[in-house]
Amino acid sequence: MAEHIVKFDIAPNPVSMPTGTLVSEAAEKAGIEINQPCGGQGRCGRCAVVVTEGDANIRRRSTLRLSAEDVEAGYALACQSVIEGDAEITVPPQEKIQRRLTTDRTVGKVAIPAGYDPQRGQTIRRVTVTLSPPSMDDQTDDWSRLQTALRKQAGITQLQASLECMRKIGSVLREGDWKVTATLNAKTWDCPDCPARLLALQPGHLSEDAPLWGAAIDIGTTTVSVWMVDLLTGEVKAQVAEYNQQISRGEDVISRIIVADKEGGSEKMRDLVVDTINDLLVQACKRLKATPDEVVKATIAGNSTMMHLLLGIPAASIRLSPFVTAVNHIPTLDATDVGLAIHPQAIVDCLPGVASYVGADISAGVLSSGMADSEDVVLFLDVGTNGETVLGSKDWLVTCACSAGPAFEGAGVLHGMRATKGAIEEVWVNGETHEPNFRVIGGSKPEGLCGSGLISLLAEMFLTGVVDKGGKVNTKLATSRTRDGEHGGEYVVAWAAESSTGEDIVITNVDIDNLLRAKAAIYAGFAVLAENVGVTLDMAEQVLVGGSFGQYINVEKAIEIGLLPDLPWERFQFLGNTSVQGSYLALIDYEARNRIAEIAARMTYIELSADNKFYDAFISAMFLPHTDMSLFPSVAKVIKEK
Amino acid sequence: MAEHIVKFDIAPNPVSMPTGTLVSEAAEKAGIEINQPCGGQGRCGRCAVVVTEGDANIRRRSTLRLSAEDVEAGYALACQSVIEGDAEITVPPQEKIQRRLTTDRTVGKVAIPAGYDPQRGQTIRRVTVTLSPPSMDDQTDDWSRLQTALRKQAGITQLQASLECMRKIGSVLREGDWKVTATLNAKTWDCPDCPARLLALQPGHLSEDAPLWGAAIDIGTTTVSVWMVDLLTGEVKAQVAEYNQQISRGEDVISRIIVADKEGGSEKMRDLVVDTINDLLVQACKRLKATPDEVVKATIAGNSTMMHLLLGIPAASIRLSPFVTAVNHIPTLDATDVGLAIHPQAIVDCLPGVASYVGADISAGVLSSGMADSEDVVLFLDVGTNGETVLGSKDWLVTCACSAGPAFEGAGVLHGMRATKGAIEEVWVNGETHEPNFRVIGGSKPEGLCGSGLISLLAEMFLTGVVDKGGKVNTKLATSRTRDGEHGGEYVVAWAAESSTGEDIVITNVDIDNLLRAKAAIYAGFAVLAENVGVTLDMAEQVLVGGSFGQYINVEKAIEIGLLPDLPWERFQFLGNTSVQGSYLALIDYEARNRIAEIAARMTYIELSADNKFYDAFISAMFLPHTDMSLFPSVAKVIKEK
Repeated sequence: MAEHIVKFDIAPNPVSMPTGTLVSEAAEKAGIEINQPCGGQGRCGRCAVVVTEGDANIRRRSTLRLSAEDVEAGYALACQSVIEGDAEITVPPQEKIQRRLTTDRTVGKVAIPAGYDPQRGQTIRRVTVTLSPPSMDDQTDDWSRLQTALRKQAGITQLQASLECMRKIGSVLREGDWKVTATLNAKTWDCPDCPARLLALQPGHLSEDAPLWGAAIDIGTTTVSVWMVDLLTGEVKAQVAEYNQQISRGEDVISRIIVADKEGGSEKMRDLVVDTINDLLVQACKRLKATPDEVVKATIAGNSTMMHLLLGIPAASIRLSPFVTAVNHIPTLDATDVGLAIHPQAIVDCLPGVASYVGADISAGVLSSGMADSEDVVLFLDVGTNGETVLGSKDWLVTCACSAGPAFEGAGVLHGMRATKGAIEEVWVNGETHEPNFRVIGGSKPEGLCGSGLISLLAEMFLTGVVDKGGKVNTKLATSRTRDGEHGGEYVVAWAAESSTGEDIVITNVDIDNLLRAKAAIYAGFAVLAENVGVTLDMAEQVLVGGSFGQYINVEKAIEIGLLPDLPWERFQFLGNTSVQGSYLALIDYEARNRIAEIAARMTYIELSADNKFYDAFISAMFLPHTDMSLFPSVAKVIKEK
Repeated sequence: MAEHIVKFDIAPNPVSMPTGTLVSEAAEKAGIEINQPCGGQGRCGRCAVVVTEGDANIRRRSTLRLSAEDVEAGYALACQSVIEGDAEITVPPQEKIQRRLTTDRTVGKVAIPAGYDPQRGQTIRRVTVTLSPPSMDDQTDDWSRLQTALRKQAGITQLQASLECMRKIGSVLREGDWKVTATLNAKTWDCPDCPARLLALQPGHLSEDAPLWGAAIDIGTTTVSVWMVDLLTGEVKAQVAEYNQQISRGEDVISRIIVADKEGGSEKMRDLVVDTINDLLVQACKRLKATPDEVVKATIAGNSTMMHLLLGIPAASIRLSPFVTAVNHIPTLDATDVGLAIHPQAIVDCLPGVASYVGADISAGVLSSGMADSEDVVLFLDVGTNGETVLGSKDWLVTCACSAGPAFEGAGVLHGMRATKGAIEEVWVNGETHEPNFRVIGGSKPEGLCGSGLISLLAEMFLTGVVDKGGKVNTKLATSRTRDGEHGGEYVVAWAAESSTGEDIVITNVDIDNLLRAKAAIYAGFAVLAENVGVTLDMAEQVLVGGSFGQYINVEKAIEIGLLPDLPWERFQFLGNTSVQGSYLALIDYEARNRIAEIAARMTYIELSADNKFYDAFISAMFLPHTDMSLFPSVAKVIKEK
């Protein structure tokens, strides 16, 4: 059989392949790992490559996940394209870009924003000054002496300091023999005209390169992330994340508010999240050989409940009609106020939220997503317990939260679990045998199903006829995989012998109903937002998916179950944890901080529980993918092809 | 014998007296108590009255303490003037005016400054607002809702609040059914352009008359004073004072600095003074049926060491050359920072000092004394351990501290004691028998001698020849009162049988030497200040004596020993505790607060320990009254007359 030379842009050497082999096989031979999350069935489109030379020699067996424009531009699905002659192929890096910002499963390099100037953007300044020592002819007090030196040598005209700082000035000045390094915060959003604030004073002249740390923090209901940032450059030097210890007192925000409202509950919830953050700070500092005392600024994003619980502010009104927060724009605090184990006088800036269920995580996310600068209409979705959605552009922004509930985080699902080792994260079901194939996080035996696994499983079951439009398992199929169980109809994803728990891993009708409610709530949120501003969802030129969970969703499968709107796949972008990204931007750039406040003020919040349209839209979305199939033409096409 | 009708202005009825009786006897019969601290010997001049009708009927036996102008104006010494016909007599109220501001022995009514307008002067505002309740159509957060109401209903455009306030807003708004009373501080000296600060929020609309308390505090080395002030009117409603509990750890500032510098010493000293203040606040609140939580502002004056120890700021540099403080202008704090048991968010404003030994007590005292507005040259003296002196006018101010030591507070004197019950506060010695007469505080048996008693005793001993110019007791006198004791020559003021201790109360050569050192230091301070600015002491048109001790000094006796300059008695004014008075003015009036800072900045501090002129002046003043008798003409005259 004839051999053909295939050259990949990112491989050191070309490979020789016989006629009829797949591009994905050639890539493997060339040492390139191309992601094929659907197992090479041509359904996910994640293996798309670009044929740059010899396009006629590459026969596309299926272009289901590609548009005509894509094909015109040379795109081909590696798993569906057959080599019939020499070719040169480019492998797009999108898969890696999408994952680079993750904090919980992978840690990647974060780019400093283009054109960023720490001198202009950073509010923290560190300066070295030399004071004239006091004498019998000059008995000026230490604090005035320091202020004079800072004014003359660093141009700092007005300066304030805490009592704690005042207590240290005398000894630091003398220990440094009247040479000192002062770290100060030049301004805060809530008092831009206030004097600069002295945060720390160290004896001697520190090297200009000595690290100056900041922490960008995101408090998720599930996961807390901390990025350690070199404030001198804006560079992210470490990223750590772990589960929010509050989980032990409640999976979702509502149950946590209830706990916090009980005697001693507020202090307990506060301690749990403060401990989580402090543990992460210690971890990050250890990794960087830094001491927590060197961290002089922190920005914190999180949903409104997380912010209230962090600060010990009663959150009960968030849960009760008419659902209001105590405070959206939290004043600038210091580390001692919040309980963070960093420099006691470190500036702690809690970012502003919009409403009870659209918090600072979304304001920050909208900033970091760039949608607030977009000429086009953009749909932004933070996939998680709360299902916050923003629709808009640079000219307008509407937002809602659809309380999807934690089904996609594994709660309310018999064998649901979080996305940790042992979770099935993707499933493929054979259309004929109805036998499943799955991938497990960490590669071990499966223990249960995480969110992305559930979406994937539900889509596959639907497309292969294991469940009907209404989400009921067809127990009449000629397979032992479907059966009547304790919870009604169910499908066995893994047999007891294969599982780490020693019992069958199943999905039941009840589980599916919970998942349908969650996805219907999210989709109904999109629909109501669009209807409220008089646009249709297909007018969204971009769908930006945030949330660390969001980035593991298989778009096609999410569309197939009707969770995401049926739009061309290239419009979707997975941005990872947009909240911590926004927190990071606010940490390094005063203007970005102000833009988040401006975005929060600009967003029009639509309360879904007060909107009848939401209930109608929710009921319509309680099917796979939707009662109105005209909204899901690509899914209709797939079903028809089968 | 002929009877004459004598009418006193302040007595309800005239009295009839025979020829030859004294005016003081007539006054007594009329029910008027005329102070005669020298026991009616015509030496102190404190019993001066004015003959308004029938001047020719009153024969003045002595006018030693009166000037020609005084006599021209009708003045006569009640104890030295004989009734020879009808007369009408006015009793000047000066003795009572001088004492009305005392806090430790008497409590008097303090006048609100003329023209004072609380609306303009007071930074604390209390306003009532009614909020529109939240609804599904208006889900504004509580804090923004409150800010809007305060802006629209009270014109407060910018507002900040502490985290502690944020925690309470939600429940207070709901408890008050969206009617609340907000207490806020409009501005602080260290950030006049900063947003107003919310201090307290109470449910419902408080009556406009409901009390709003402030505390004017003075921390003396010996005595701590607290004045409780109705901030709505500026009225002083209670005055309490007690010994600074730090006394148990050291009599003077130097020994306290040494204690504070030891391990745990700073915390200990801080606790002692904070406890003292808090005890006083509780006492004052109890008296006013107020709760400490209703006190929302405090101003604090005190010498630099007291301020540093209060705030836990290391004070060691105050004691060591070149004698500098850590901070003179302390930033605005809150009650939690300082540890005061008042409203946790109460504003605490520590007034500014000038130097290590010229503190906020002096800046505040200069303000309250009015000397900074004087066209004439004024000498201001805070008699106490530190002997701070200010010389100047509205155009210039120079100041020094002469570390007189605590001799006049009874320390370093064998039978010295503080001015409490049992202390001999005034002494008269018979010029022939050398037998003493004395007055005891509380009227009981004597226990020892307090400052005013020591001054009085020393002057009497000098004028009656019991001690010589050099301060040595003449043990050759024909009296058992003088003798050689353990400490050299001594004079017995009270025999064991008369004393409460059952032992002789004596003053020894060593005691006298210590007193001479103290008075010489103070007088040398005056001399150096005057010399430095090129004036002579007799150019001082007023001598203002502050300090709660100062007001018990007998001017004439103080001049006789050379403690005070020899100036006409009418130039002397006793102002009581000028420090707490200044603290009070700063509490009620923002402009007064700023003037204290301006005064502190304007005072030129002269460091005596670096000034050779001081040593010379000190040595010259180590005699009774001074080596240069031309400086003490009135004393020379008295001696010559004897």
